[in-house]
Amino acid sequence: MPDRILVVNPNSTDAVTQGIDEAMAPLRFAGGPEIRCVTLAEGPPAVESQSDADGVIPPLCRLIRETEAHAAAFVIACFSDPGLFSAREVTAKPVLGIAECGILTALTLGHRFGVISILARSVPRHLRYIAAMGVGERLAADLPVGLGVLELANARTTLVRMIETGRRLRDQHGADVLVMGCSGMAAYRAELEAAVQIPVVEPTQAAVAMAIGRVRLGWGCRLSLPGD
Amino acid sequence: MPDRILVVNPNSTDAVTQGIDEAMAPLRFAGGPEIRCVTLAEGPPAVESQSDADGVIPPLCRLIRETEAHAAAFVIACFSDPGLFSAREVTAKPVLGIAECGILTALTLGHRFGVISILARSVPRHLRYIAAMGVGERLAADLPVGLGVLELANARTTLVRMIETGRRLRDQHGADVLVMGCSGMAAYRAELEAAVQIPVVEPTQAAVAMAIGRVRLGWGCRLSLPGD
Amino acid sequence: MPDRILVVNPNSTDAVTQGIDEAMAPLRFAGGPEIRCVTLAEGPPAVESQSDADGVIPPLCRLIRETEAHAAAFVIACFSDPGLFSAREVTAKPVLGIAECGILTALTLGHRFGVISILARSVPRHLRYIAAMGVGERLAADLPVGLGVLELANARTTLVRMIETGRRLRDQHGADVLVMGCSGMAAYRAELEAAVQIPVVEPTQAAVAMAIGRVRLGWGCRLSLPGD
Amino acid sequence: MPDRILVVNPNSTDAVTQGIDEAMAPLRFAGGPEIRCVTLAEGPPAVESQSDADGVIPPLCRLIRETEAHAAAFVIACFSDPGLFSAREVTAKPVLGIAECGILTALTLGHRFGVISILARSVPRHLRYIAAMGVGERLAADLPVGLGVLELANARTTLVRMIETGRRLRDQHGADVLVMGCSGMAAYRAELEAAVQIPVVEPTQAAVAMAIGRVRLGWGCRLSLPGD
Amino acid sequence: MPDRILVVNPNSTDAVTQGIDEAMAPLRFAGGPEIRCVTLAEGPPAVESQSDADGVIPPLCRLIRETEAHAAAFVIACFSDPGLFSAREVTAKPVLGIAECGILTALTLGHRFGVISILARSVPRHLRYIAAMGVGERLAADLPVGLGVLELANARTTLVRMIETGRRLRDQHGADVLVMGCSGMAAYRAELEAAVQIPVVEPTQAAVAMAIGRVRLGWGCRLSLPGD
Amino acid sequence: MPDRILVVNPNSTDAVTQGIDEAMAPLRFAGGPEIRCVTLAEGPPAVESQSDADGVIPPLCRLIRETEAHAAAFVIACFSDPGLFSAREVTAKPVLGIAECGILTALTLGHRFGVISILARSVPRHLRYIAAMGVGERLAADLPVGLGVLELANARTTLVRMIETGRRLRDQHGADVLVMGCSGMAAYRAELEAAVQIPVVEPTQAAVAMAIGRVRLGWGCRLSLPGD
Repeated sequence: MPDRILVVNPNSTDAVTQGIDEAMAPLRFAGGPEIRCVTLAEGPPAVESQSDADGVIPPLCRLIRETEAHAAAFVIACFSDPGLFSAREVTAKPVLGIAECGILTALTLGHRFGVISILARSVPRHLRYIAAMGVGERLAADLPVGLGVLELANARTTLVRMIETGRRLRDQHGADVLVMGCSGMAAYRAELEAAVQIPVVEPTQAAVAMAIGRVRLGWGCRLSLPGD
Repeated sequence: MPDRILVVNPNSTDAVTQGIDEAMAPLRFAGGPEIRCVTLAEGPPAVESQSDADGVIPPLCRLIRETEAHAAAFVIACFSDPGLFSAREVTAKPVLGIAECGILTALTLGHRFGVISILARSVPRHLRYIAAMGVGERLAADLPVGLGVLELANARTTLVRMIETGRRLRDQHGADVLVMGCSGMAAYRAELEAAVQIPVVEPTQAAVAMAIGRVRLGWGCRLSLPGD
Repeated sequence: MPDRILVVNPNSTDAVTQGIDEAMAPLRFAGGPEIRCVTLAEGPPAVESQSDADGVIPPLCRLIRETEAHAAAFVIACFSDPGLFSAREVTAKPVLGIAECGILTALTLGHRFGVISILARSVPRHLRYIAAMGVGERLAADLPVGLGVLELANARTTLVRMIETGRRLRDQHGADVLVMGCSGMAAYRAELEAAVQIPVVEPTQAAVAMAIGRVRLGWGCRLSLPGD
Repeated sequence: MPDRILVVNPNSTDAVTQGIDEAMAPLRFAGGPEIRCVTLAEGPPAVESQSDADGVIPPLCRLIRETEAHAAAFVIACFSDPGLFSAREVTAKPVLGIAECGILTALTLGHRFGVISILARSVPRHLRYIAAMGVGERLAADLPVGLGVLELANARTTLVRMIETGRRLRDQHGADVLVMGCSGMAAYRAELEAAVQIPVVEPTQAAVAMAIGRVRLGWGCRLSLPGD
Repeated sequence: MPDRILVVNPNSTDAVTQGIDEAMAPLRFAGGPEIRCVTLAEGPPAVESQSDADGVIPPLCRLIRETEAHAAAFVIACFSDPGLFSAREVTAKPVLGIAECGILTALTLGHRFGVISILARSVPRHLRYIAAMGVGERLAADLPVGLGVLELANARTTLVRMIETGRRLRDQHGADVLVMGCSGMAAYRAELEAAVQIPVVEPTQAAVAMAIGRVRLGWGCRLSLPGD
Repeated sequence: MPDRILVVNPNSTDAVTQGIDEAMAPLRFAGGPEIRCVTLAEGPPAVESQSDADGVIPPLCRLIRETEAHAAAFVIACFSDPGLFSAREVTAKPVLGIAECGILTALTLGHRFGVISILARSVPRHLRYIAAMGVGERLAADLPVGLGVLELANARTTLVRMIETGRRLRDQHGADVLVMGCSGMAAYRAELEAAVQIPVVEPTQAAVAMAIGRVRLGWGCRLSLPGD
C-alpha cells in the first residue's frame, strides 16, 4: 500500500472537496503518495466565522484519530487552520495546515505577501494567526472580496473581485506574491495570476506539496519536551 | 437586579471554581456588579493541552448563549483563553479572557513580564497567543513549574516551585512583573509576591477588574464591519 | 473615608477638567471609590507639544507627592502620559496613564486600533510611545484631526472631523477599534461610535476603570529590583 | 526526460556533495523528479565567511545560466543561501535556498527553532538573514559548534558537539525544533534527533522536498512588477 | 600624510563618481581627513539589480585590499551596500555603507523614514536589507521613481518625479524624513527638501560624515569572537 | 568664529563634565568645529532615576534657548537622552542625544549590541527608549554594573565590574559590540575594549562625531508638517 496523504475539508460541502481534489492533479504521480480528499460530514456548509472554525475541531480530531492507521500525513484544508495544534497532539503523523503552508510557500516567491480573503470578518482572524506565526513583517495586507465560501462558486463575480482585490494588494499595499485565503478558490489560480502578473499561491496545493516531502522524510512533530 | 459578571471556569473541577470565587472577594462591593463563578460541567477535569482547550469551546459557547440574558459580561477563567473570539461572536455582551487581561494589566506594572505556567507543553501555546496579541516584545520568558492543574492543590510543592520559577524569570530573564499562567494559582499570589519582590498578577482578578469597568461603561465588541 | 482616585488634568484649563469629570459619571457608584478630578494649576492651557508634556512633569510630581496621603491611586489625564514613569517613582500608590490604559483596553475590543489625535505634530510623539509600549504591531494608524486642544470645544467642527478621521482609520487603514487621542474628546464618544460603527475608547474612562480594580486589589508598582 | 532538480553545492569539496547526494535517497522515487547534485568547481573548499559566500555568487549564477535548459528547479546547498536573489533574476525556473527552506520547514515542526552553526562568525551572518526573512520572532538562538565545514567529517567530535549544542538550544533557549546550519551535517540528523528528542531539520532535504512540489506545480518567481 | 577616506563608487560610470565628489565639498576642511572618490572600473555602468550588486563584490573587495595601506576608512557608495560585510572581513579599517549610514542618520531627523528608490525591483532588495538592519518599524515606505541610475542625469524629469514620490511618502505613508535611495541623486537634495519641507538625507554625505568621526576615534569592527 | 558644538552635561557634577571634555580630544582638530562642554548647574549631582531625567528637561531647554545663537549644534550628554524631543522643538539647530547616537553607531560595528548600565533601575528606562527607537531586535541585553554615576569615579571597582558585565553580555547574551550606558564611563573605554575584544562605543564621542557631520552639512530637524 502506498503512503496516503489525507486532505480533510472541514466543511460539509462536497463541491468544495471536489474542487480541492481536482487541484491535486499535478501532485499525483506514479510512485508518489496517494492523495485522498474527504469531507468532514459534521462540519458546517462553510467555515466563515471563528465559531465555525472552533466548532469543527472536535469532529476533525475524531476523524484524524480514527483514520490515523491508514494515513501517512494529514492536511487540514481550511484557511483558518482549525484544530491544527490539537491535531498534532492527537497523532504523531505529520499534520499540515493550508494557511501555514500557503503563507510559508509565499515567502519563497516574493517579499511581501497579500492575502485574498472571503469576508471582512475573516481578516482579524487571519491577522491573529499570521502574528502567532511570527511572519507579520512580511504581510502586505489581507483584503476581503466580500463573498462567502459558497458564493465563490459563481465564477464570473468571483474572478472579477479577486482580480480587483489582487491589484489593490499589489498596487496600494506593495504585495509581490498573493495567497488565496480559502480552500475554495483553486479553480481561479491560473487566471488570477495571469491578470495580476505576480505569483499566486493556492494553499491546499502548497500544503500537500510540503506533505509529500514530509511523508518521504518521515519527520513528525511529536517527540517529547523536558518537564512534560 | 444588579449587573452580573459571569466568570466561567471551563474545567469541570469545582475546587478550582471555588478558589476563583474566593479570589473575587476584593472585587465585590456594595453597589458594584455581582460576580458569579460557575463551572463548565462538560469541561475536562483540567485544561492542560491544546485539545483540552479547543474541546471546551462548543459547550462554553452554548453556556454563554444560554445565560446571555442574565449576564452583563463574561470572563473565561482559563489561561488559554479558550473560545474567546468565538464567544465574542455568540454574544454582544463583553467577553474577557484572563490571559489577555492578565497580560495587559502586567504591562502597567512592569516593563518585561514573566509567565509562570503549569506544564512545559503549555509554553508554545502561550507563546502563540502572546504573539497573536502582538505583545511579545514585552515578554521576558514563560517558564513551567512542571505541575498539572490539579497538582496545584498541593500547596507546599506548588509554592516552592512557583517561587523558584519566579526568581529565575526575574534574575535570568529580566522580568520585573509576573503573571500567573493558570486560574488555579490565586491562593499563592501574596506569598509569591512577598518572596520575589516584584508585582504578581492573578489573571482572573485582573480580568474581572477590567470587566467591572466595561459593565459600567457599556462598551461591547460587536458593531459591524463594512463588507461583512 | 472611601478610597479616592485622583484624576489629574495636567493642563490648566478648567473646562477640560470639567469635561473629564462629567465623563466619570458611569464609573461612580455607591460603595465604589471616590473619583476626584483636579486641574494642575501650573500646567499650560493645553499640552500640544513635547515641551508642553515634559514641562508639566515637575509640578505634576509635586502634586502627587503632596496629595499622596489622601489618594489610593492616580490617573494622569493627558494622552502623552506625561511623567508616568517619574510619578511611579514618587509614590508607591498605583499611577495609570490614559494613553497606556486607553490603548490596552482597545486591544480587548478589536484587533487593530486607530488613534485620533489632535495635531500632526502629536503623531510622532504617540508613535514613540506606542513603540515603547511594544504594541505597535496592533496599531492601524494615528491620524490627526488638525485641531488644538482648546479648539475641540467647538462641537460641530470637531465631531465632523473626528468622524471623517475615524472613517479613514477604519476604511483605509483597517482599524476595527478607535482610541480618542486626547482627554478633551470625551463628549463626542457616543456620537463618534454611532457614526463609525466600531468601538470607540475614551481613554480617561478606560484608565479610571482600570484604577478601580487596582485600588480594590491593592496592586502597586514599586517593590524592589536586585542591584538597585 | 523527467524533470530534474539541480542541487548545487557551492563549495568545491566533492565529499560534501556526496554527503548531500546520499541524503537525497528518501526523496528519489519512480515517477518523481531526478535529483542531481553537482559541485561548483570554482567555489572555495568551504564557505565559512561572508567573503566566501559572496565570492561564489558570480560562478554560481554562471552555472545556473548554463544549465537552465536542462533543469526544472535549482537548490543552492549552502546555509548562507549565497546568490539566492541573484539566481532568481538569472532564471525564471524556481530557485530555493536551503537556509530559507530549512527554516520555513522548521516553523511547521515547532514554535521556536534553534540553529546549529559551524563557527561563531557564521552567527551574525545568519542573524542578518533570519531578520531579512522576517522570522526572527521564532528564533530561539543560533549557536556554533566551533568546527569548520571540513572538520565536520570527523564524526565523533562533530556528533558530540552537535548534541551538546542542541541540548543548550533546547534547555537554555527554549528551542523545540532544530535546524542544521550547514549542508555538511546530514549524516548526523537521525542520531542528533534521537539524542535531543525534538525534531531536527536537515536543510537540503527540506529544500529539495519543497522543490519537488514546485516542479510539479510549475510556480516560478519571475513575472513582472509595475514600474520595472 | 593626512587620513584618507576612500569613497568607492562600485559602478563604472565616472559621471556618478563626479557627482558624489561634488557632494563631498561641505565635508572637506583644513585639518580634516582627505576624501577621495574613486570609480570601480570593473563595475557595471549602473547597479540596478541584485546580480549587479552581488557581481561587484569580488572586484570591490580586491580594490579595498589593494588600497588598504593608503586609506583610513572606506565608504561603499551604492545604496545596496554591496559587499559591506565581506569588506569588513577583508580589512580591519572601518568600512561604512551608504544605505546603512543614510538610514541611521535619518533616524535622528524624523520618526518614520521614506526611501526614494530608482526602480520598482530595487524595493524588495531594500526591504530585505532594512529588515536585516532591524529598523523596519521606522520605515514609512520605499517607493520608486521608475528611473534607472543613468536616467537620473536628466534633471527635469528626475526632480519632478522625486518631489512627487517624496510627497506621497509624506502624505500617504506618514514619512517625516526622506532618504535618497541611490548615490546618484545628490544634486537634487536641496531642491527636494525645499519642495517637501521635511529633512532629506543624501546617503553618501551621511556615510562620509560618520566616517570622519570613525577615523578620528580609531574604532574598527574587527577584534575577535570566542569560538572563531 | 568657528562652528561650535555645545555638549551639555545635564548633571551638576563638574568632574563628569571634565571627563567628557577629555574624551573629546580626538574629535578636536584645526578647521573643525569647536567642542565646548558645559555643566547644567540646575541639574542633580547624577541622573539615575526617571525623575532625575525628567526633572532636568526644563532647565536644559532654557539653557539651549539662551545659548542657541552661539551654537551650531547641541549634544545632550546623558544616556537617558533627557529632553531630546523637547529640545528639538526649542531650537532649529541639530540636537543629538548620546544614547541615540551611541546605539546607532554600534549598529555599524556589530550585529547585536549590549548596553552596560549603571543601576538595575536604569534598565527598564533604557528598554523603553530602545523600543521607542525601533531597534530592539538588535539588542542583546542591557545589564547593570550596580554602581551609581558618582561611584564610577572609583576606577578599580568600576573597571572590574564593567569587564565582568561586558563578558556576560558577550558570552551569555551574544553581544558583538558594547555601548557604555552612561556619559561618565569614557575613561574606561580602551581598557574595557582590550579586555572584551569586541568594539566598545563611548556614546558622547559617538554623538559628537555625528554632530560634526551635521554641522558641516547644515541638516536640521525642523521644517514643517502638514496639519500642524
